[in-house]
Amino acid sequence: MNEQAAPGRVGDVRRRNLSLVLDLIARTGDAKPSRAQLAAGTGLTKAAVSSLVADLVESGLVTEVGLYRDGERGRPGQGLELSPRRGVVGMEINVDYLAVGLVDLSGKLRFSSTEESPNREMRPSEVMDRLRVLAGQAEAAAAKERMAILGGGLAVPGLVDEQRSLVLSAPNLHWEREALSPDRLLGNTPLGVTLSNEANSAALGELWYGSGRPDFLYVSGEVGVGGGVIIDSELYKGPGGSAGELGHIVVHPEGPSCSCGGAGCLETFAGQEAIFAAAGIPAGPLAARTAELLAALGAGQSRVAEAVHDAGRYLGVALASSARLLDLEAVVLGGHFAVLAEWLRPALLASLERHAPGLLAQEDLVVSTLEHSGTLLGAAGQVIRSVIESPSELMLAGKPA
Amino acid sequence: MNEQAAPGRVGDVRRRNLSLVLDLIARTGDAKPSRAQLAAGTGLTKAAVSSLVADLVESGLVTEVGLYRDGERGRPGQGLELSPRRGVVGMEINVDYLAVGLVDLSGKLRFSSTEESPNREMRPSEVMDRLRVLAGQAEAAAAKERMAILGGGLAVPGLVDEQRSLVLSAPNLHWEREALSPDRLLGNTPLGVTLSNEANSAALGELWYGSGRPDFLYVSGEVGVGGGVIIDSELYKGPGGSAGELGHIVVHPEGPSCSCGGAGCLETFAGQEAIFAAAGIPAGPLAARTAELLAALGAGQSRVAEAVHDAGRYLGVALASSARLLDLEAVVLGGHFAVLAEWLRPALLASLERHAPGLLAQEDLVVSTLEHSGTLLGAAGQVIRSVIESPSELMLAGKPA
Repeated sequence: MNEQAAPGRVGDVRRRNLSLVLDLIARTGDAKPSRAQLAAGTGLTKAAVSSLVADLVESGLVTEVGLYRDGERGRPGQGLELSPRRGVVGMEINVDYLAVGLVDLSGKLRFSSTEESPNREMRPSEVMDRLRVLAGQAEAAAAKERMAILGGGLAVPGLVDEQRSLVLSAPNLHWEREALSPDRLLGNTPLGVTLSNEANSAALGELWYGSGRPDFLYVSGEVGVGGGVIIDSELYKGPGGSAGELGHIVVHPEGPSCSCGGAGCLETFAGQEAIFAAAGIPAGPLAARTAELLAALGAGQSRVAEAVHDAGRYLGVALASSARLLDLEAVVLGGHFAVLAEWLRPALLASLERHAPGLLAQEDLVVSTLEHSGTLLGAAGQVIRSVIESPSELMLAGKPA
Repeated sequence: MNEQAAPGRVGDVRRRNLSLVLDLIARTGDAKPSRAQLAAGTGLTKAAVSSLVADLVESGLVTEVGLYRDGERGRPGQGLELSPRRGVVGMEINVDYLAVGLVDLSGKLRFSSTEESPNREMRPSEVMDRLRVLAGQAEAAAAKERMAILGGGLAVPGLVDEQRSLVLSAPNLHWEREALSPDRLLGNTPLGVTLSNEANSAALGELWYGSGRPDFLYVSGEVGVGGGVIIDSELYKGPGGSAGELGHIVVHPEGPSCSCGGAGCLETFAGQEAIFAAAGIPAGPLAARTAELLAALGAGQSRVAEAVHDAGRYLGVALASSARLLDLEAVVLGGHFAVLAEWLRPALLASLERHAPGLLAQEDLVVSTLEHSGTLLGAAGQVIRSVIESPSELMLAGKPA
């Protein structure tokens, strides 16, 4: 390691250049750029790139992959890629399940596990204990693949204070101002665990690893209905951090009371519980209820079809209003809206055509291909982005074992 | 004029520094900074500031005002201010009136005139001819005050293509893809006339000259209901330029058809025509109808009170949805919502409390103090901002007479 990059003494210019090189390696992806290509792409000298790459390789973030020729001429160079031996654990607490995923620096989900869990009937500390066990599976998977874990991202269905690891409000979990100590979900890691909102994380997952465009609204369908607003390839959080609360857009002024304290919100018509209730599907494990719903839809049961039709219609109302306000170019449906897309879509499109004709074309309404892993990828992805934007932080924090 | 500032040869650094100095003079406002204060505030040398100020004074954008002492010590300096002898004409075409205003560089409305005009019953070219006559009054007022007009801003209630001076769609005027040639509204000016959306202009007027905070939603109440979204002191237009269409947020899924082709939009309950119709006030000149409405409200006529109450209630629904999606910190009510605020407010607050409890406090809901002049100030203000951000453009365009 050269002098400038020694812990505590990385200069500002070098910090920025480390990020510049790492970002280009990340963006080049499968093409595995050579040092010469990195120099051309960043405008830095070859000598500077070599020195920066040496630090990135030593830190374990970047690996050299075999020899190959740069075009036809010149001597062979070594390709560079983000190390497959470094990972981040994405975690999710939702109303009725827990999930963890091990994500490598290139955004590949290398392991994942989901477990049904009646979280709103448990104390937050119990939920965290249970998630700790599940996270242990991701740690074991990492150990097996000889990956070092740099940190983690934890997504929850509520408004969070990221800096203070505080859940400000998660109505569907009945959590108010819960301090979570998320760092304890993993063994010692250089970056610790960052808290985020579930729908926002899923939106970022779509942006970085899924079907997202530079501007879109991600619709998260769980027990709660959430939204993540991506504007110009960035998450729009709003001045207070709670933008994109799609589930609490008013879709009927005389509608029923909602967990948020309001009334007539989209969630009361199109949230998971609302659909199960309208369809007459009794309480029980989520997977079983979903299977029953899908079977009934397949069999053409009218009460169930109507419940899903209504959810689609009201989702259309909320999306029409959102399109007017945000000038939406595209919508990505996630969670149960993705699972039910085939049955929701006709009513949703008819509703959009009725309330906002011509505003969103059929092809602007896409179904997430990431399914539930979008949230895990986004929660982990935020940590990966922070590493790419500031690799020197990680170098200062000490190399992982 | 020194060599670098000669037309066609203003270097990039000098361009930026001219803007830096002019912007500081604009922001300092009534304090009328000296050259020494400008040097301290911009980090430029006194010699550089003197040279830049010389060009700005010669261009007519800046004037020297008397001698005064900089604190207690040193030799007296000359204060500098934006010239009161340069102005921009703000103009507005709305559904049933036309308006013009003469705005000086500091944002003072030096003259204004409004005229009722049944614009949707006229051809666009006739409307423009009529506005040309009204703009002549602003030109005459400028001549009388020995002000030179740098350009104009024209606001219309519709979606515009600013670059091509094209109204893409103004449903309430029944205009679709109308090319307007706005430059012909004024005699020869260095900057010509820029087209903008009415609600967006009014929002910018509030931001720059009114009660606006860094983040707020401006609600424009005219025949159409519009909105302007200000995020972090900038107008948010959305990827397609049509963000903030508050009037077409769906407030009742079974509501009536709307001019936009949709149904159940806020405008169908809270637009001017909708309120007059629900209140049973017959067609006629706008001022007379408004007077009748206010008199009936004062007399406590129940049908009229109910019409206004309903408008307030549905406006509350739309604002609740907007607050959820955008994480609104404040709302500024303009147009007829400002005129009717006293009567609207109870139903509006009750509706917000019902649908989005705790989200917007009473004090976050303010009434515009600019009234109809907000749109004129914002339309002119956009031209003034462009001069401050790029004074060299104006210098290249030639000095006004």
